[in-house]
Amino acid sequence: MPGYESEARPPKGLRNGITLSRPMIQRPRGTRDFGPAEMAGRRAIEAAMRAACQRFGFGEVVTPTFEHSELFTARSGEAIVDEMYVFRDKGDREMALRPEITASIIRYFVNEMSKVPRPLKLYYVGNCFRYENPQSGRYREFFQLGAELIGTKTPETDAEVIALAVNCVRDAGLENFVVRVGHIGILKSLVRSEIEDEKTAAEALRMIDKEDFDALGDLFDARAISRRLFDRIVALADTKGGAELLDKLEKSEATEHLKEVFSVLKLYGIDECQIDLGIVRGLDYYTGMVFEIDAPKLGAEKQVLGGGSYTLSELFGGEPVFSTGFAIGIDRVALALKAESAEAGYAPIDAYVIPAKEDMRKYAFGIVAKLRQAGIRADVDLMRRTMSKNLKYASSAGARFAIIVGREEMAKRKVVIRDMKTGEQTQVPADFLGDELKKLLA
Amino acid sequence: MPGYESEARPPKGLRNGITLSRPMIQRPRGTRDFGPAEMAGRRAIEAAMRAACQRFGFGEVVTPTFEHSELFTARSGEAIVDEMYVFRDKGDREMALRPEITASIIRYFVNEMSKVPRPLKLYYVGNCFRYENPQSGRYREFFQLGAELIGTKTPETDAEVIALAVNCVRDAGLENFVVRVGHIGILKSLVRSEIEDEKTAAEALRMIDKEDFDALGDLFDARAISRRLFDRIVALADTKGGAELLDKLEKSEATEHLKEVFSVLKLYGIDECQIDLGIVRGLDYYTGMVFEIDAPKLGAEKQVLGGGSYTLSELFGGEPVFSTGFAIGIDRVALALKAESAEAGYAPIDAYVIPAKEDMRKYAFGIVAKLRQAGIRADVDLMRRTMSKNLKYASSAGARFAIIVGREEMAKRKVVIRDMKTGEQTQVPADFLGDELKKLLA
Repeated sequence: MPGYESEARPPKGLRNGITLSRPMIQRPRGTRDFGPAEMAGRRAIEAAMRAACQRFGFGEVVTPTFEHSELFTARSGEAIVDEMYVFRDKGDREMALRPEITASIIRYFVNEMSKVPRPLKLYYVGNCFRYENPQSGRYREFFQLGAELIGTKTPETDAEVIALAVNCVRDAGLENFVVRVGHIGILKSLVRSEIEDEKTAAEALRMIDKEDFDALGDLFDARAISRRLFDRIVALADTKGGAELLDKLEKSEATEHLKEVFSVLKLYGIDECQIDLGIVRGLDYYTGMVFEIDAPKLGAEKQVLGGGSYTLSELFGGEPVFSTGFAIGIDRVALALKAESAEAGYAPIDAYVIPAKEDMRKYAFGIVAKLRQAGIRADVDLMRRTMSKNLKYASSAGARFAIIVGREEMAKRKVVIRDMKTGEQTQVPADFLGDELKKLLA
Repeated sequence: MPGYESEARPPKGLRNGITLSRPMIQRPRGTRDFGPAEMAGRRAIEAAMRAACQRFGFGEVVTPTFEHSELFTARSGEAIVDEMYVFRDKGDREMALRPEITASIIRYFVNEMSKVPRPLKLYYVGNCFRYENPQSGRYREFFQLGAELIGTKTPETDAEVIALAVNCVRDAGLENFVVRVGHIGILKSLVRSEIEDEKTAAEALRMIDKEDFDALGDLFDARAISRRLFDRIVALADTKGGAELLDKLEKSEATEHLKEVFSVLKLYGIDECQIDLGIVRGLDYYTGMVFEIDAPKLGAEKQVLGGGSYTLSELFGGEPVFSTGFAIGIDRVALALKAESAEAGYAPIDAYVIPAKEDMRKYAFGIVAKLRQAGIRADVDLMRRTMSKNLKYASSAGARFAIIVGREEMAKRKVVIRDMKTGEQTQVPADFLGDELKKLLA
């Protein structure tokens, strides 16, 4: 029954005689479409990270894509409204597409899990939204995987979270990455110990957070704060290197905590972590250890992960609880893997079954059904094409093998396997086709 | 180092002396949070369906969570705006959280894949949004998996899509389901053959689509259309049963098409499909075969899947192309599985490692690292708790086994495995712990 292929495009003006020639609708600016090859790579990254979370005893949580706006302003301040997609719901409440997921996890914890025995180990994978001008490596919809360890603040807690982060990034296939671990308390206590006025101290810490050391110098000059403190702050922010640097610092609760963190990391067999006391991610938010992972091959936008210990639940109406967590930018990890060109080749189909002539068609459907039952990704001609068109399609669709069912072969219950890369053909009994393909695909 | 546990709750007013006692922030009305046990079940459903899509040679596509509103109004009419979450972006363009994903897939096809060799086989998994009053089984954010086969309209195309749908539902674990297959063309051509006035015919079809046979009767009376046609329409809409019913109908292009669909389904080993000519899902939208899958245990809201063949690309500015697809309600499938109580028990941790005393702590971290390397979901005391508190936690956290590291055992490089269900304890050499646990967990 030929003719189907030419019929495959319906005439224009199909709907009740109206001619439909419309302008092409595009996707929204700053968003992306991901096709099959890209998604295969992204799902592999995600699967590797999920498996790591599960090995570490973390359980998955999924929360709504939008939340009451106040959830995010409570954590990040009113200014974040400008960076969020905000809309009003039928009850005239202000909602926002989530810019991050930690706030939702802790809200869920406060709402429903505050009585569950601690520690709680939760992870998430999801999309987030940022309403900013699109630029390289920053998208209006982006994807994060993160973990939160809730209800404990020991050094081994911090080490556990860092170890999981390293396992996620490593298992995703990244080879070149740098783990930097710091502690918010060291800079904080230095500033507070020397600046008595609490307002000035807070102002200084905000400038350090922004790494705006020019403004900090001006502030110190204006308030006649010693230049010596300024130099100590700059030196501390520049303390980067091996764990032995901790021994050179003035002993404090924070330095002793970090030493213990590094000793547990060593027991976990994780020895790629460095000290970086210059990490000042949100001084208001984090309470102790902070850490980041970079993929140097990414250049300027090299950070793939950020995390640390914090308290947040009290802002959402819960009792205060110590937590440690991190978020990984899945988009950045995917880019970093591309930069390392560690991406696996994507073959969407293992076997494409081609009936040589019309009367082998039924036989072909039975074969493809059996292959699928055996777990082989199999496809079959659905458009009643000729052999040469089918071979062309199998090639452009990326099939690894074509399975050709000819009249002579059918009579002998045999089929031909054609390697689409080499063009080599082998005849095998139909009953052994699945086993044979599995061998060839292994 | 005791005392950590009591310190685990930071004092209220932690942030700069401000007392923080806020009202609890709740999740938005009509949305849901999913905890670890529920997510384990949902991800298992999703994984089974993804595997089926891949076996059938479908590749995954991910499109943005929001789109230009006109994408959805072009497909479904302006009335859908009331059921969507709509907001304006920085360029004052109207955006909507997607109420479905087929429109996005076809937009992506028109934008970027119209030159790719056909047929194209694409699938998606994602969240959709419906702005309606929450009620049982209907949520404001819900989850769908769907597939679209683009660029062909043969009976084997329809059979392929139905076969994939059945594989998805079956592999997800559902045992009780009904597949009903119909054809929009049979009712359409009956109406059009007897009602010459095109406007009246369109009105009649809309009423049939809504299953409003009272209104249809009134229309027929008002326009003096024969009662005989009315009876034939009602009888046709009530044609439900085995494929042999097709032989009793007047022969038409549609009946012959359906016969071929059923014959290919048989070759695929799928024999649970029934004929139901009463399926009238969107007469404007579907062009031929339509089908639905129900899970009868769900009662009134029993439909878990709907699909059929359609053309859509021309509405988005592309050339017209025949497609066949379906969407599965993951929430409904999860509910149906619960109704069948086929849900597997969820144990979040395989092994929880407990150091009996302070000086076994380091040894314990080495053990947990090794278990994780072996792929075992392992956890360890992070809060420096006593043995009895640790055993209590292991039990409430759902650990299958506790691994107890005592002083005497450590000296002999042994550990104790405690079955948390039976309380039974066995001593094994530390080096064989991973193998031993794998045997016990198998």
